[in-house]
Amino acid sequence: MTPPWQERPVGVVGLGLIGGSIALDLLAQGREVRALVHRQETAERARSRGLASRIDTDPAVLGDCALVVLALPLDRLLDPPDSLVAALPAEAVVTDVGSVKAPVLARWGGLVPRFVASHPMAGTAQAGVEAGIAGLFVDRPWVATPTTGTDPEALADVQQLALQLGARWLCCDAAEHDRAVALISHLPVLVSAALIAAADQGARGPGDSATLPSLVRGLASSGFADTSRVGGGNPELGTLMSRCNREAVRQALSHYRLALEHLEACVERQDWPELERTLVRTQALRPPFLEPPV
Amino acid sequence: MTPPWQERPVGVVGLGLIGGSIALDLLAQGREVRALVHRQETAERARSRGLASRIDTDPAVLGDCALVVLALPLDRLLDPPDSLVAALPAEAVVTDVGSVKAPVLARWGGLVPRFVASHPMAGTAQAGVEAGIAGLFVDRPWVATPTTGTDPEALADVQQLALQLGARWLCCDAAEHDRAVALISHLPVLVSAALIAAADQGARGPGDSATLPSLVRGLASSGFADTSRVGGGNPELGTLMSRCNREAVRQALSHYRLALEHLEACVERQDWPELERTLVRTQALRPPFLEPPV
Repeated sequence: MTPPWQERPVGVVGLGLIGGSIALDLLAQGREVRALVHRQETAERARSRGLASRIDTDPAVLGDCALVVLALPLDRLLDPPDSLVAALPAEAVVTDVGSVKAPVLARWGGLVPRFVASHPMAGTAQAGVEAGIAGLFVDRPWVATPTTGTDPEALADVQQLALQLGARWLCCDAAEHDRAVALISHLPVLVSAALIAAADQGARGPGDSATLPSLVRGLASSGFADTSRVGGGNPELGTLMSRCNREAVRQALSHYRLALEHLEACVERQDWPELERTLVRTQALRPPFLEPPV
Repeated sequence: MTPPWQERPVGVVGLGLIGGSIALDLLAQGREVRALVHRQETAERARSRGLASRIDTDPAVLGDCALVVLALPLDRLLDPPDSLVAALPAEAVVTDVGSVKAPVLARWGGLVPRFVASHPMAGTAQAGVEAGIAGLFVDRPWVATPTTGTDPEALADVQQLALQLGARWLCCDAAEHDRAVALISHLPVLVSAALIAAADQGARGPGDSATLPSLVRGLASSGFADTSRVGGGNPELGTLMSRCNREAVRQALSHYRLALEHLEACVERQDWPELERTLVRTQALRPPFLEPPV
C-alpha cells in the first residue's frame, strides 16, 4: 500500500548538500518536490540546477506537503523562524537531517505534532546549492531517534523515504546517537584539525629553519592526507557539531586525551613493548568500525 | 654516460615491501639483482615470487655488487650483524631506506666508506615478502640526507637509482628530515591510534549501554575510516618510528598537545567564534601539504 504522503508533494527546507540531494533523488523517482530556501539568489541557482518542482523563499510553498524534510544547518534548525513553523501543515510529517539529535528533539518535539528526528549520514566535501548530487544516500546509514511521543505512522513514513533513497535504516536513542557521532564523527574533526595545526607549528620552530616548512609540505603523503582530511573540512559545520553536541564531544575529548597520554607516556618512558601492544590493539580494533553492521 | 654501478649487480638486503619493490623494478629494467634475506623460508618464498636474480641467506651473495640497498627494518638496520657489514664490498655504494635518518647516519656513516642515507617515501598497508610490487616509487619522494663526509659520486649513484625507479629526488639535512617525518608521518600514527582507542573506550562507558558499541561501529563512516587508517597500521613499524625518532616525535607530540588543548579550550569556554577561526585556519593550511612541491 502506498503511504498517503507519497501521493502528495514532499517539502524540502534548504537545498544544500543534503536537501539538494534528497530533492534530486525524489525528482528522479517522479515525485513532486516543493522547496523552501532562504535567499532569492539561492532560489534562482537552485531553479537553474532543476533541484525541485517548485522553489520559493515564501514558506507558503510547503502548504500542500504531507512530509517535510528540514535540511537546515544545525544552528538554524535549532532556532527556526516562526514563519517556517507556522507554514508547516498541521498534519504533515516533519523530519530533519541534523547530525545531533537530542537538542533537535528538545526544540522540535513540542513544536509540530508529527516530528521525527532523523540523521542521514552521508556527505561529501561540498556545501551549498551546487553541492547536491543524485544517489548520495545509497547504502549510507539513515538514523532515526524516535521517543515515546513519536507518532509510529510518521516514523514509518520517514523510514519509507529513507529506504526509497537507498539508505540503511536504523533507530536508536537520541542520547546514544549523539554519543556515537561525537566519537566517530565530531571527535575526528578536532583530532584531525589539531594535526594540521601541529604540523604547521612544528615546521616553524624551533630554530627558524627556512627549509623545514617546505620540506614538511613536500614530504606529506597519503598518511598525512587521510589523517588530516576531516580537520581541513567545512569550518562552520565542524563548529556546529561541537557547539550542538558539546557534552558528548567533551566526553569524547576526555577519552581521547587519556588514549593519547598513554601513547605519550610509552614514548616518554621508552616503553616500546607497551607501545607496540597498544598499536596491536588499535590495529585489531579498527576493522569492526569499517564493516557494515550485520 | 652509464655510471659504473649500472654494469654490475645491485644488492638488496631484505625483500619486504620496500626491498621487494626495488628488486622487482630493477629486474623489469633488465638489471641483475642479488638479494640477501634473513631466513631460508623467506628465500624460498622470494624465489617463488621471482623477486631477484639470486636470493640467498649467505651475505657472500653481495660480493659482486657495486651498489647495495639496505632495505631492513629500522631496528635491524641500526644493529646490523657483523657478517653483513663484513660482506659489503669495500668500494660499494651502500644506501638504506630507513624512515629515520640521523641515527642511521650515526651508525653507518663510519661503518662503510661510501654510505648514502636515503628514504624512499612510499608504502602500502602490506608488509613481508609478499608485499613488494612494481612501480611503488613512481612520483613518490626519495629523500637523501648527505653529510659533508658523503662521497658525491656515491650520492649521484643513489640519485640515479631513485630516478630510474620513477621517484622524485630530494636532498636535505638529516635532522630536518627526521623532524619533518615526525610531524607528517610518525605523529599521525599516534594521533590516529589514540582516536581508535578513544572510540572504543568511549563506546563502552559510562552507563554500560549494550547498544552503544554496535551503534558506534555501525555509524562510523569515511571520516572515521580515513582519520583512523594509519593508527590501524603495522604496529611494529609504528613502534620503530617512535623509538628511532624519539626526540622529534616528542617535539611533535608537544606541538600536537598544544593544538588540541586550544581546540578543547574553545569547547570548554564555548568560544565558538574562535573554534571556527581555528578550523578556518586548518582548512586553509591543509592544501599546501597535499600539493607536489614546485
